[in-house]
Amino acid sequence: MERRSFIRRAGAGVAAAAVAAPALGQTGQPEIRWRMASSFPKSLDTLFGSGDQLAKRVSDATGGKLQIRHFAGGEIVPPFQVLDAVQQGTVEAGHTVGYYYVGKNNAWALDTTLPFGLNARQMNAWLYFGGGQQLLREFYKEYGVVGFPMGSTGVQMGGWFRKELRGLADVKGLKFRIPGFGARVWAALGAVPQSLPAAEVYQALERGTIDATEFVGPYDDEKLGFYKVAKFYYYPAFWEPGPMVSLYINQKAWDGLPAEYRAIVEAAAAECNVTLTANYDAKNPPALQRLVNQGVQLRAFSPAVMQAAYQAAQDIYADERAKNPTFAKIYESWDKFRADQQRWFRVAELSMESFRPAAPGPAKGAAKK
Amino acid sequence: MERRSFIRRAGAGVAAAAVAAPALGQTGQPEIRWRMASSFPKSLDTLFGSGDQLAKRVSDATGGKLQIRHFAGGEIVPPFQVLDAVQQGTVEAGHTVGYYYVGKNNAWALDTTLPFGLNARQMNAWLYFGGGQQLLREFYKEYGVVGFPMGSTGVQMGGWFRKELRGLADVKGLKFRIPGFGARVWAALGAVPQSLPAAEVYQALERGTIDATEFVGPYDDEKLGFYKVAKFYYYPAFWEPGPMVSLYINQKAWDGLPAEYRAIVEAAAAECNVTLTANYDAKNPPALQRLVNQGVQLRAFSPAVMQAAYQAAQDIYADERAKNPTFAKIYESWDKFRADQQRWFRVAELSMESFRPAAPGPAKGAAKK
Repeated sequence: MERRSFIRRAGAGVAAAAVAAPALGQTGQPEIRWRMASSFPKSLDTLFGSGDQLAKRVSDATGGKLQIRHFAGGEIVPPFQVLDAVQQGTVEAGHTVGYYYVGKNNAWALDTTLPFGLNARQMNAWLYFGGGQQLLREFYKEYGVVGFPMGSTGVQMGGWFRKELRGLADVKGLKFRIPGFGARVWAALGAVPQSLPAAEVYQALERGTIDATEFVGPYDDEKLGFYKVAKFYYYPAFWEPGPMVSLYINQKAWDGLPAEYRAIVEAAAAECNVTLTANYDAKNPPALQRLVNQGVQLRAFSPAVMQAAYQAAQDIYADERAKNPTFAKIYESWDKFRADQQRWFRVAELSMESFRPAAPGPAKGAAKK
Repeated sequence: MERRSFIRRAGAGVAAAAVAAPALGQTGQPEIRWRMASSFPKSLDTLFGSGDQLAKRVSDATGGKLQIRHFAGGEIVPPFQVLDAVQQGTVEAGHTVGYYYVGKNNAWALDTTLPFGLNARQMNAWLYFGGGQQLLREFYKEYGVVGFPMGSTGVQMGGWFRKELRGLADVKGLKFRIPGFGARVWAALGAVPQSLPAAEVYQALERGTIDATEFVGPYDDEKLGFYKVAKFYYYPAFWEPGPMVSLYINQKAWDGLPAEYRAIVEAAAAECNVTLTANYDAKNPPALQRLVNQGVQLRAFSPAVMQAAYQAAQDIYADERAKNPTFAKIYESWDKFRADQQRWFRVAELSMESFRPAAPGPAKGAAKK
């Protein structure tokens, strides 16, 4: 997923402000107005639309008494300072992604995804029933926020490459625009991760200043037009097997809500969780078909690349655990859960998913089909 | 999933009753009490607990003004007459599964699952963003109910077999307790589907009166103890690749709710959708491990069985479409969506899911692991 490698430190460019104080409405429940800053531009309509959906649901469920005004990335807060703004109370809520904040602590990546980690369903299982949310909320306390999962993109695509990657040898020196833990894994394989502002990526790829870039998946990627300048579209983004979007709420703002409003916000966030993934799942297949129709060449990363990347990821986690007790504590829960999940998903889910009918004959009486 | 093949017709054993009339509360919003009949026993705590979760969330979000009293299967309505009771207004709501009502119309199966159909995520994508819910709600109107998805079990397990199935030849004459479309597929392969009350299944399997039975997945199956009398545990339940549980609400009761309450019920149902699947995903891996520790032998259905079953399913759909215009109309949307989804999931999701690290060395510095 698109994000900067280096996040500016808390507070830069963010005006101090007070959390909105509630005023009692006519029927006993207070009228409250919140502002929610997004990290996403309106053009990423699936992600941005999920924030709109949250605000609408909360308004509808409270008879308009809890109003959440939703601002696109950069409108009132820079996209990668949403957490800071929520922490400081400049805004009551933020719609963003935890791993944008790895500059503060790499443990933030565990709120989103790690290479070779949990898929979308497994992430929900860990968060809601595997102790994940509890551990993360302990961690969020350092930032004065509470957090809620807002949905996963599913396994992302590996990105756009100007040339085919025929094996590990082709990775050496590859100028690949990719941030975070993914960048560390690719660097271990010999690539040279690049950090570029979003606006410069297309031109850099066109000119060959970079060899490759990753973004999200077919529906979002199509809009940026990378297929016009890099025709090899690789999969899977093994560094993003199920990235989770998050809603962060200022702790004081949260504590100031009536219990009914808290219940409504929590249910609405969970609703966005299931519908964001469903929305991406519905939009990606036709987008991929359109891309293929444009001449895009689909390629899988080779087993050698995947295997080397897996080993590199394990080494990076070991280093990180040794240096970072917060990361180590959350990772331990996550990793135990991941191992159990991956074993189980290889049974019923994978055997079903990987079944391909071998050129069945036409169904009897299927003339109308 | 456990259910009867033959559903008693609407109304049998169900007392006529009026939908609860609202009374205005102190703060302008009415106090409403509903009853929700479940098809599930309390012992299936994941499924039954999801209904409790819905009731609690709705109560919390309305300050206790919309109270949903939740009754286990059989308490006030027989488990397989929940839809009838909702239709007649005996209860305002029902927590059940659409395919229990295929005795009324086989199109009800499309609300739940079909052999070789959508997985849990794909079902949500179709329902929320692929036109599925809209088509199904048109169909529900014939029954005077509105419906909401309440979560999927994920791909179920294929069930408990006394002997190994070494190929298609072993299917001939197999007495397999399985209902619905799954039964039709197995019958086409030469099996003899059995219909038995739940209470008699264990003994029938022990005595060899039946050769096999299917149920749900490791967590639920473990409780019934089938592993003591049939040690081969097959996967996947290709006839149930992502069965969806449903909430049905009497149309008049729904229309009588204030808009705020409707928004709350809808959000709470969507929350149950994501958490039911997450709960099963969290509980199934340790349950499977416990079963294997008891000597259970895991077996995959052979490619020959899967392939023959796939072809049989296509023939059954063609027959059904020819006979049943309601089924045909909904199936057409579902099948087009399914084909697109399965193509897409074979790209990023399947390539990620099927990656297995090849005996990686220990991570550097992983001594603490």
